[in-house]
Amino acid sequence: MNKETRDLLFDQAKQWILEAGATIRRKINDPITIQTKSNANDLVTTMDKETEQFFVGKIKSKYPSHYLFSEEGFGDKLSSLEGTVWIIDPIDGTMNFVHQKRHFAISVGIYQDGIGEIGFIYDVMADILYSAKKGEGAMKNGAKLPPLKTDLTLQESIVGMNHYWLCKNNLVKETAMQELVKQVRGTRTYGSAALEFAYVAEGIIDCYLAMKLSPWDIAAGKIIVHEVGGITTNISGNEFTMLDSDAVLTCHPAIHESILSEFLIKGKK
Amino acid sequence: MNKETRDLLFDQAKQWILEAGATIRRKINDPITIQTKSNANDLVTTMDKETEQFFVGKIKSKYPSHYLFSEEGFGDKLSSLEGTVWIIDPIDGTMNFVHQKRHFAISVGIYQDGIGEIGFIYDVMADILYSAKKGEGAMKNGAKLPPLKTDLTLQESIVGMNHYWLCKNNLVKETAMQELVKQVRGTRTYGSAALEFAYVAEGIIDCYLAMKLSPWDIAAGKIIVHEVGGITTNISGNEFTMLDSDAVLTCHPAIHESILSEFLIKGKK
Repeated sequence: MNKETRDLLFDQAKQWILEAGATIRRKINDPITIQTKSNANDLVTTMDKETEQFFVGKIKSKYPSHYLFSEEGFGDKLSSLEGTVWIIDPIDGTMNFVHQKRHFAISVGIYQDGIGEIGFIYDVMADILYSAKKGEGAMKNGAKLPPLKTDLTLQESIVGMNHYWLCKNNLVKETAMQELVKQVRGTRTYGSAALEFAYVAEGIIDCYLAMKLSPWDIAAGKIIVHEVGGITTNISGNEFTMLDSDAVLTCHPAIHESILSEFLIKGKK
Repeated sequence: MNKETRDLLFDQAKQWILEAGATIRRKINDPITIQTKSNANDLVTTMDKETEQFFVGKIKSKYPSHYLFSEEGFGDKLSSLEGTVWIIDPIDGTMNFVHQKRHFAISVGIYQDGIGEIGFIYDVMADILYSAKKGEGAMKNGAKLPPLKTDLTLQESIVGMNHYWLCKNNLVKETAMQELVKQVRGTRTYGSAALEFAYVAEGIIDCYLAMKLSPWDIAAGKIIVHEVGGITTNISGNEFTMLDSDAVLTCHPAIHESILSEFLIKGKK
């Protein structure tokens, strides 16, 4: 994608995201209808669906040749990332949306033939927009995010992860992850993968680990984290395919290798 | 304490808290000197100390008969709660202050002969002040917080807790806490006890569990949570003494008993 195309697409996507966010803020205290998906704690609301449909309508009308890959299924069914593909989570952190009416984000990544070109993570209630353009760095509300500082040890790191990593699970021995918890400075759990990617990019946490993320959870975050020098892989150290769900590690570069090899790979089941 | 005294003290404390918060915001990007206390992750900065000294100076000058019990030790050494006692954490969530420059709070509780009269939790960077007066309910930035809704099951609850509960520890079997994690809707870790108390009071999390809190971590939060109908105890179900540190459970009333008996007491070591 050339710079002119990328810039135009960035401006258009940004406008739609801010518009969708304003709508959500206006309706935040309306009664909501909650359904569950894969399990009782996998929530979806009419707001998720309406927001996704807003993006589908806008994108399909202005860019009929673009594809759209999104959480609630109103987009396209994709088996490849050829062409221009928008990968969207209309509300990342639906549990927070439902229970907290804050701490959720709109996540939009735009890929060209599999290459991440544009990423947006919009903390809707705080009105904070994280963004990135390929090769041009990442921004927070228009201010450039500095590259991640180079000097960081595991012992000084703050790790975002949910508590299931420390319970019996199919991916990794819980004792290995308990050891990680004891070695790092602190752990946090915020309940929105997109925001935790943004926090890694901002350097307010140094790593985020998730057991199962879908492409729409990670599409924007991977680009934004990359632009400040962070690394995103699955928990075997391979690239996330962006077509299937996978366990994910996004990380400050100074600690990626040690978290991967000393805890995730060593503890692998 | 009579209402007039309480109202005057509330207004004065509020003014000092907002002033201290404004100073912290003004200095938030200044270089900070970090020291460690009980362990490498127990941080203290000059900002903690300066903020505490600000309160000591104000309180001792205006209310020379009042006592002050505070984290960094510039206050009094107390062996009882007789009289009017200010219990202060100048920066609750010092790790967040250092690593995130946000998500920390000033916590001030005022007790009269051991009875909680006034509580303030000030999210400094977000400029959100949670407060309560005994018997008059709790507020968030001047708007009354509604009483906690009565219908809540454990399965719908969000629990604030750190990850050490799920590692081998001296208090409770980690397997009991892992079972709790699996039964509830979700878990969160924010890194500030005072803010997690405020979130319980606001109903955006339903319970907060901490392995070791000091009086200054809990003094304000206990009052604020109580005013919306929440319950705070130690993990044996007894009252927190407010003179020593202890493990703490602050909770929506509908789930306090089951978290206590089915997980904490059943899993007790």
